[in-house]
Amino acid sequence: MSAGPAVANRKRPCVVWFTGLSASGKSTPASALEAELRRLGASCYLLDGDALRRGLSRDLGYSDDDRREHIRRVGEIARLFMDAGLIVLVALISPFRSDRKATRELVAGDEFFEIFVDAPLEVCEQRDPKGLYRHARAGRIPQFTGIDSPYEPPLAPELRLATAQYGIDECVEQVLALLRRRERLPPLSPGP
Amino acid sequence: MSAGPAVANRKRPCVVWFTGLSASGKSTPASALEAELRRLGASCYLLDGDALRRGLSRDLGYSDDDRREHIRRVGEIARLFMDAGLIVLVALISPFRSDRKATRELVAGDEFFEIFVDAPLEVCEQRDPKGLYRHARAGRIPQFTGIDSPYEPPLAPELRLATAQYGIDECVEQVLALLRRRERLPPLSPGP
Repeated sequence: MSAGPAVANRKRPCVVWFTGLSASGKSTPASALEAELRRLGASCYLLDGDALRRGLSRDLGYSDDDRREHIRRVGEIARLFMDAGLIVLVALISPFRSDRKATRELVAGDEFFEIFVDAPLEVCEQRDPKGLYRHARAGRIPQFTGIDSPYEPPLAPELRLATAQYGIDECVEQVLALLRRRERLPPLSPGP
Repeated sequence: MSAGPAVANRKRPCVVWFTGLSASGKSTPASALEAELRRLGASCYLLDGDALRRGLSRDLGYSDDDRREHIRRVGEIARLFMDAGLIVLVALISPFRSDRKATRELVAGDEFFEIFVDAPLEVCEQRDPKGLYRHARAGRIPQFTGIDSPYEPPLAPELRLATAQYGIDECVEQVLALLRRRERLPPLSPGP
């Protein structure tokens, strides 16, 4: 039996970190990527910031300190999953550069792929699937990223995903191409 | 190819929770069990309480509240690993029944195997690999479990491991037998 994707993955776990505004399109492509990686035989797991807020971080709020602590915990868990040999996908607003930098250092720089999910605020606000922007604009959610709390875009992300321009499949393909280039997945075999 | 242990494991993840006094022998058999499960082809991961204190829980101390929060976090992480399809091994003093009960409920009762690592305090204190009991007796570590903070033994653990009587291999075999009985591992095939 030849060394398939699962074998390659076991050797080269990594963290794929989706950062961007609320409703920029982090969870949906991350979830589609998870399904595709599994189909390819890779061991992977998606850590979703919103879901973790209901579990591990349910003691935390949305102050700058609490956001920082939330991101720190997600980074620590990502490191554990990586240590277990998995490709870890993280979908988390993670607005501050310093927190993302700290996480990159935590998991070792060359195992950390920062994916900047770059959709204009207007687009995110129009999507607003949970009505959060509407509540934030009405002053009912304080310190909402993009409204009255800053989002600091990555200066040198491993990949920029323009989710307002490309569909889910294309976004997934762009991340897969990155993982192939960085040898986390085997290269595409040439056609027959 | 027949359905091997890895397949069985993918279908039936669980949490194997080693609780007991400091130096009772939790990490060593848990670590040996992890190696044996991997050899059998099962996906598994060991969460060690001491190691997590240096990472995820490095903001916590040893007050009752902080211990409770530490155990809560480890339980949440165990649940994530279980969700990822792994057999999760946890080595953690976890002295209070209420905390272990909360964790059992968090991961769903029938996926939670509580292993009471039962070594007499005198034996643990004599082993004292890190000199912690000595420091605690000298009053330099407050609220040390077994000295000036209680350890509440499980009333109905899935397994009691008498680490003062049995060697590592025997302890590992007892846990493997439990996992086979509870269908987390395939039964031993009869001899030829």
